[in-house]
Amino acid sequence: MSSDPTQLQLLFFDVDGVLTDGAITYHENGGESKNFHTQDGLGLRAAMQVGIKVVIVTARSSQLVERRMTQLGVDKLVQGCKDKATTIAALADEFGVALEDCGYLGDDLVDLSAMDRVGYPMAVADAAPELCEMAAFVCTRPGGRGAAREAVEHVLKTQGKWDAVVASYR
Amino acid sequence: MSSDPTQLQLLFFDVDGVLTDGAITYHENGGESKNFHTQDGLGLRAAMQVGIKVVIVTARSSQLVERRMTQLGVDKLVQGCKDKATTIAALADEFGVALEDCGYLGDDLVDLSAMDRVGYPMAVADAAPELCEMAAFVCTRPGGRGAAREAVEHVLKTQGKWDAVVASYR
Amino acid sequence: MSSDPTQLQLLFFDVDGVLTDGAITYHENGGESKNFHTQDGLGLRAAMQVGIKVVIVTARSSQLVERRMTQLGVDKLVQGCKDKATTIAALADEFGVALEDCGYLGDDLVDLSAMDRVGYPMAVADAAPELCEMAAFVCTRPGGRGAAREAVEHVLKTQGKWDAVVASYR
Amino acid sequence: MSSDPTQLQLLFFDVDGVLTDGAITYHENGGESKNFHTQDGLGLRAAMQVGIKVVIVTARSSQLVERRMTQLGVDKLVQGCKDKATTIAALADEFGVALEDCGYLGDDLVDLSAMDRVGYPMAVADAAPELCEMAAFVCTRPGGRGAAREAVEHVLKTQGKWDAVVASYR
Repeated sequence: MSSDPTQLQLLFFDVDGVLTDGAITYHENGGESKNFHTQDGLGLRAAMQVGIKVVIVTARSSQLVERRMTQLGVDKLVQGCKDKATTIAALADEFGVALEDCGYLGDDLVDLSAMDRVGYPMAVADAAPELCEMAAFVCTRPGGRGAAREAVEHVLKTQGKWDAVVASYR
Repeated sequence: MSSDPTQLQLLFFDVDGVLTDGAITYHENGGESKNFHTQDGLGLRAAMQVGIKVVIVTARSSQLVERRMTQLGVDKLVQGCKDKATTIAALADEFGVALEDCGYLGDDLVDLSAMDRVGYPMAVADAAPELCEMAAFVCTRPGGRGAAREAVEHVLKTQGKWDAVVASYR
Repeated sequence: MSSDPTQLQLLFFDVDGVLTDGAITYHENGGESKNFHTQDGLGLRAAMQVGIKVVIVTARSSQLVERRMTQLGVDKLVQGCKDKATTIAALADEFGVALEDCGYLGDDLVDLSAMDRVGYPMAVADAAPELCEMAAFVCTRPGGRGAAREAVEHVLKTQGKWDAVVASYR
Repeated sequence: MSSDPTQLQLLFFDVDGVLTDGAITYHENGGESKNFHTQDGLGLRAAMQVGIKVVIVTARSSQLVERRMTQLGVDKLVQGCKDKATTIAALADEFGVALEDCGYLGDDLVDLSAMDRVGYPMAVADAAPELCEMAAFVCTRPGGRGAAREAVEHVLKTQGKWDAVVASYR
């Protein structure tokens, strides 16, 4: 594996604990809720703005995740994913990107098999220690509090593309 | 630009990440939620109490924001704002206040074009680095956890009006 | 004023920012929510267990606060309170307790007039600076995250009653 | 009592403040909510994966807790528990495990009587001081933010079983 962020063309993101703060809220009257973050939304859009594919892969399944991801306009969302290693290999193939040109941002052991296979594994600040140890980049911000934004910003800066994103807002 | 808070007559506030903690909560049973803060509410009222206009400008749009802002009695709320620079110029004109006598409290890149134009740009503690660098004042408190209150308090203290606000509560 | 916690017979608590973490959550589908804390619940019960009256005074009004306070079995709840100084004086009189034998835990300027009048004013860790300066006791925990529990525990320890509370759980 | 985690065969967990962050959210439109954590979910599953029984004991009662625990597949859930010492003794007996081979993770005084009786009492980072003092292990993470995960990980590491859990994810 290259661990070279300058060549990344596709970024995978887990949902719970990565795009959310890890809280899974249960309501007495039924249903669940998850907390996403406004700055992460801008981060995912920034990646797509410069042509990087944004793909979401989660083991759980809920329509609220579909609604959030549709609103953000991500390139693909896969829910109910039982085997992340196999799933990301198929997805990378579908997008025509080599796994070594993919990144993955995770928070827990279920992400390990996928992180072992991509070229640039990344971990949120409050990820399991096993992920932080093997990650090429560990965020300073926890999941659902700007970690995804920070990861995108890190990648885009290494690719010299972040200044153009900032400039597009001025 | 003057960067002189003593002349400010109008304060602009973003919503997500500024008047809220940045969390966008999605529910399985439909709908979203946002977390506002009680001390920020008192802060916005304090600004209006001394005659400073309070105007809310947000790119997103939801009726929950309208309900919160109606409850606080802000001078104006503009939702679904696509171009903040143009919008705040029109709003300042509507209120008869020069842009250099306006402040703006933001948290992310979408606020940059507006912050470039007002006389006194301010950033919440957890704002994007680009905002903190150009802001005349950076709060010690994060968005939705007292940052708006702190910004108002800062401005009113420079104008010598804070003591009167405190006294009004005794 | 005595500032003597050993004689306290009645404790007043504000709601937003004191018994809650200050968040006021608005939902797209209507209604609001507030976050209370499990350890604060045990704290209020501990005060009542040793015979101290627990009275809740809030400027806002909602049935969710009534439900929470009914569940905790507090001695009295007053909502929609516009003038806290007058209200607490009447309440102390109703319970036959002198104001100098009352405590008050607050977080913001609306609590100042009441805190000026009780014998033992207390502030949560994230209270407005004006409250922290005049309070006889400032909690190390913020509102809605154990501050009320800490305040009760502090008072009961000065009264030599905390050990009995702990023992009752063994 | 042995205070020997290597022999533990059953772990008891409280709910509010242990498997949740202590927040009890009340809604204007009725009902309550609690915040569980994704990493705690993986922790409980890891304990069961290596054959340790996971039993939940809570004084309160709500169907949302039942839904979460059913989803996690815990070995047993007891709600509305008034006397935790008696309840855990009966439960340990039911599972055929001696109390000295049981652990208990708690956060507040209501857990003390049970923690006094098990072989390996544990406390979350933000537990009441009385629990931290008598606990054999105090988590670095607060309740509902990974404390249960950390407790399980700690026990499994002393039993030499954690590496196998990690390996099962690769």
